[in-house]
Amino acid sequence: MATEHDDLLIARVEQPGGVSVRLAQQIAFIVEVDRLKTVLRRSPLIAEDRRENDAEHSWHLALMVPLLAEYADDPIDVGHTVQLVLVHDLVEIYAGDTFLYDTDAERDQDARERAAADRLFALLPADQAARLRALWDEFEARESPEARFAKAMDRLQPLLLNFNNKGGTWRTPGVTESDVRGRKSVIADASTELWAYAQKLIGLGALRGWVRRDRD
Amino acid sequence: MATEHDDLLIARVEQPGGVSVRLAQQIAFIVEVDRLKTVLRRSPLIAEDRRENDAEHSWHLALMVPLLAEYADDPIDVGHTVQLVLVHDLVEIYAGDTFLYDTDAERDQDARERAAADRLFALLPADQAARLRALWDEFEARESPEARFAKAMDRLQPLLLNFNNKGGTWRTPGVTESDVRGRKSVIADASTELWAYAQKLIGLGALRGWVRRDRD
Repeated sequence: MATEHDDLLIARVEQPGGVSVRLAQQIAFIVEVDRLKTVLRRSPLIAEDRRENDAEHSWHLALMVPLLAEYADDPIDVGHTVQLVLVHDLVEIYAGDTFLYDTDAERDQDARERAAADRLFALLPADQAARLRALWDEFEARESPEARFAKAMDRLQPLLLNFNNKGGTWRTPGVTESDVRGRKSVIADASTELWAYAQKLIGLGALRGWVRRDRD
Repeated sequence: MATEHDDLLIARVEQPGGVSVRLAQQIAFIVEVDRLKTVLRRSPLIAEDRRENDAEHSWHLALMVPLLAEYADDPIDVGHTVQLVLVHDLVEIYAGDTFLYDTDAERDQDARERAAADRLFALLPADQAARLRALWDEFEARESPEARFAKAMDRLQPLLLNFNNKGGTWRTPGVTESDVRGRKSVIADASTELWAYAQKLIGLGALRGWVRRDRD
């Protein structure tokens, strides 16, 4: 009888014997998350004309955290915040990326992501599964200063990609300047200074015609 | 007169005014490192038929560090090791990736990478430039337990990609099993257990004909 483990990337090739159950579980997870590199986001890269994937995006956020931590309104633990951004998109391996301006897909996003988290983290030894699940839950809850800052990075980074692409996903039909401001306002929950900067990008983008102005 | 700053990604679009010099420098760096997503490695992904890029690779290592830290022979600071892997490939933005089995390119690799580091980190405010440069120097020196473990992750991850691709870059003409063992033996400097595991993968790969055996 087929089990859901037959679908794992690790099941494509017979694995070596004589490996502890614990290490085999860790390797199965590490191999499986290779899939994050194939989950495409809407945002275009700046350096090349293609869409960004979740793994690249997660790396970019992890690098931004220590560089911009000084702007957090509440002091943050940098190492912990880096952990949050490294795992924040893992559930999209099974749940897919939900586009920021797609309000239909948002409705069942929570249930889909929770099911994906249950499935993915269960590959790990129980202690590590619990640790990663706790990081993901913390990120989603957006209550700790670290989670708020991680979320702010998650919203600021595509803003940088869009602005430096003269629009990017801002040009999606139906999206207006106030939609962008609304979606990005979580940056304000973490950093007054970075929110002021983000607003400059949005305002200048609207002025230059890269995002539709509300009065148009 | 053109300056080298004209080549920066941030120079393609006029940036907003009224931003502090410090934040503008940080943003210029964050935008510039988008280029890491376009530096291709030789290793193929497991999840999709294409080559991996440096940003995806760096994310993968950063996720592996806390999961496998328990196998380090000398105790490591996990957060610091994550920092090392997040920045370890940045210099390849200007210096390019050097293929592990390309001994010609290796000769001037050091000089090329040092020049690249000078150029890239200089975009940042001096304190942060010094911090990232110190992380990169530490990784390269491979003297601290954290740097040795980071290097072990850097060698173990493509081994996982190759094995689960039934060969991958092991199939490069001229590469033999003992070349692979030689290049991967730095894993032994960090972890006896992970080196034992790596050797199982290499031995099984050779047995299955995915890498040329030395006696062939």
